[in-house]
Amino acid sequence: MSLRQDADKIIKAALNCALPDNAVSKALRQIRFRAGKTILVAAGKAAWQMANAAYREMGDRIDRGVVVTKYDHSKGKIGNLQIFEAGHPVSDANSYSATQKALDCVSGLTARDNVLFLLSGGGSALFEKPLVSEDENQYITRQLLKCGADIVEMNTIRKRLSAVKGGRFAQACEPAHVYTIVLSDILGDPLDMIASGPTYPDSSTCEKTVEIAQRYSLDLSEKAQELLRTETPKSLDNVTTFITGSVKQLCASAMETAGELGYESIFLSASLDCEARDAGSFLASIARDHQDTEKSLAFIAGGETVVHLTGHGLGGRNQEIALSAALGIGSCRDTCVFSVGSDGTDGPTDAAGGYCDNETLAKLEAQGIDIKAVLADNDAYHALDKCDGLIMTGATGTNVNDLTVLLIKR
Amino acid sequence: MSLRQDADKIIKAALNCALPDNAVSKALRQIRFRAGKTILVAAGKAAWQMANAAYREMGDRIDRGVVVTKYDHSKGKIGNLQIFEAGHPVSDANSYSATQKALDCVSGLTARDNVLFLLSGGGSALFEKPLVSEDENQYITRQLLKCGADIVEMNTIRKRLSAVKGGRFAQACEPAHVYTIVLSDILGDPLDMIASGPTYPDSSTCEKTVEIAQRYSLDLSEKAQELLRTETPKSLDNVTTFITGSVKQLCASAMETAGELGYESIFLSASLDCEARDAGSFLASIARDHQDTEKSLAFIAGGETVVHLTGHGLGGRNQEIALSAALGIGSCRDTCVFSVGSDGTDGPTDAAGGYCDNETLAKLEAQGIDIKAVLADNDAYHALDKCDGLIMTGATGTNVNDLTVLLIKR
Repeated sequence: MSLRQDADKIIKAALNCALPDNAVSKALRQIRFRAGKTILVAAGKAAWQMANAAYREMGDRIDRGVVVTKYDHSKGKIGNLQIFEAGHPVSDANSYSATQKALDCVSGLTARDNVLFLLSGGGSALFEKPLVSEDENQYITRQLLKCGADIVEMNTIRKRLSAVKGGRFAQACEPAHVYTIVLSDILGDPLDMIASGPTYPDSSTCEKTVEIAQRYSLDLSEKAQELLRTETPKSLDNVTTFITGSVKQLCASAMETAGELGYESIFLSASLDCEARDAGSFLASIARDHQDTEKSLAFIAGGETVVHLTGHGLGGRNQEIALSAALGIGSCRDTCVFSVGSDGTDGPTDAAGGYCDNETLAKLEAQGIDIKAVLADNDAYHALDKCDGLIMTGATGTNVNDLTVLLIKR
Repeated sequence: MSLRQDADKIIKAALNCALPDNAVSKALRQIRFRAGKTILVAAGKAAWQMANAAYREMGDRIDRGVVVTKYDHSKGKIGNLQIFEAGHPVSDANSYSATQKALDCVSGLTARDNVLFLLSGGGSALFEKPLVSEDENQYITRQLLKCGADIVEMNTIRKRLSAVKGGRFAQACEPAHVYTIVLSDILGDPLDMIASGPTYPDSSTCEKTVEIAQRYSLDLSEKAQELLRTETPKSLDNVTTFITGSVKQLCASAMETAGELGYESIFLSASLDCEARDAGSFLASIARDHQDTEKSLAFIAGGETVVHLTGHGLGGRNQEIALSAALGIGSCRDTCVFSVGSDGTDGPTDAAGGYCDNETLAKLEAQGIDIKAVLADNDAYHALDKCDGLIMTGATGTNVNDLTVLLIKR
């Protein structure tokens, strides 16, 4: 098997494992539902796919349910589930009414019942039911945006004004047990941040909330002020959470496949966030100083690097990682670096990422292509296209950040 | 022991092991000299220190010798050795005459004799004896600089015009055995590059050399043209080389000390060459995703990162690595990142490097210091000064690149 074939196998398995369908199926296999009713609530951009996957597995064992996704993201009927489309990234009246339907659905349950809560990116806007009027809610949001509050401060305030955020949806389900399956697209999986954590205990305090309101001199009604002083759940005994399709699973899958292919895997990070080209150089440095290894090695990283544009070419962060690494591994043997976006699109291109090995530098030089100049112009796509370095997967239907791998084959 | 104490121990031992004296002593312990005479030849910026260390160990077992170092770098008499100071970074008449003295010293030796050759940075200019006239040698160098030839091309030409470079000094010592101790300051230790490899077989060919001369239309005398067509040694049976005080040894020492302190060491690279702040971020990513470790972990890297200046503050690449890492490890526990230049000076500062741990971010925030703004102004020194984050060692007398370490203590 060639290095490139190894890379393709690792990529295919990792992306497959991160697909909403597989992620939901995998999580469902770990759940032992209680004997009573099971209510499904799905919210987020992947809500339809997650609900569809759950329905395919469970069918009539789901008694009823509500699915809230973004406009044009529903792909049709799913059994007896009520499907709603709503506003994203800004909530609208449809978000609120669909969320109310979900709250109706889970009211009056017993301790023998289950709520299967399927959460994906975008859930924060789509799954929302303000406790103040719609007008005041929007007015407060505008004030927060205008005063320069950071995302943590904004969420701290908004959780208090919501009937479902900050653990309150789980509270509404009590005494039923809530099984939450999260398809995570946030680095480091902070559960209280994903969709502002409808089923996760809130760590912010009333004191902190009031302090933020004072610091930014927020103009609030009596009702809103009272809500800021109302505590959110600090612990929830009725929730079990499964994080799935996360970048950590992407890494875990890559490590597993690399192991099957005979590599010893070394996990570096699932939260890479530096400049893409420097991540590439860093991996190349690692590659150079592990050339005397007797075992095949796979260094695995995940995350979401950044690109500070300096040129006007075509490319993406994953393509830049691979191309930048190519500069540093030209003297290596049977060594490659590849990086791929789990959504199948890297930057504004039709490629999912890039693949470079120790021969890439010479191949491009032979064509008169200077990698440093290409990187300075952010034009990785065209250079990779000339050395079979583009990874094409098509849109995958999920987005759990990127997978970056260094392989040294012996 | 605190994290900082662990860091200080690791730094002290690593810098100590890289000092010319210790590096030479350590290498000498591995040499079994032949029964005949031993001639010492030392060249480079650390030549005096290396020769002094060798003399202290061997004393009268050294029969005679020559030391060539930079002006003002001799610290006095060493036994019966002839000590010369000469031009650096540009060779001068003193370089040539001292090098001729060294050639005289090693002529007429037998197969029972030894040459102890001590080489350090700067040797390329200090240890030189051109085979063309001094005037023509300088004229060719000026042409090479002017035409934009790269360092590899320049050295390829210059080796052919030299009586000592490209393995020719070792040839001049034949049939005596040459023990070369190299104090390396070049990443990746390319032995033919350090001082243009007086005792290392030359890999360049006559064909390549002539091609370079033609490409840049060099104006050369008949004599010089003939020299370019004269082959350099392609193998040398009479040389044993010890690379010492290199960045790899710096890393090896850090791994050893970390091991003694109870850390499991993971070697990443000895040739780090990316942007300093991104190296810091990368290490922080690794730190975040190894927080659930049960064993204490030490990730070790060496190399020489770069800083692209965007501001006008005070700092250095090692300080930027540590401070940038501080941004990403604020949520970690008992975790630190430190980086130190082996010469004891980082950038234009009196600090050798920087140390940050998981509390640094909060400490600086409490003082109203925004790390991102500090990095944008390249002002790491003043920020680190306010959180006990400067590492002060004083000048060490060696320069074998930088050591960067991530510690996670459990």
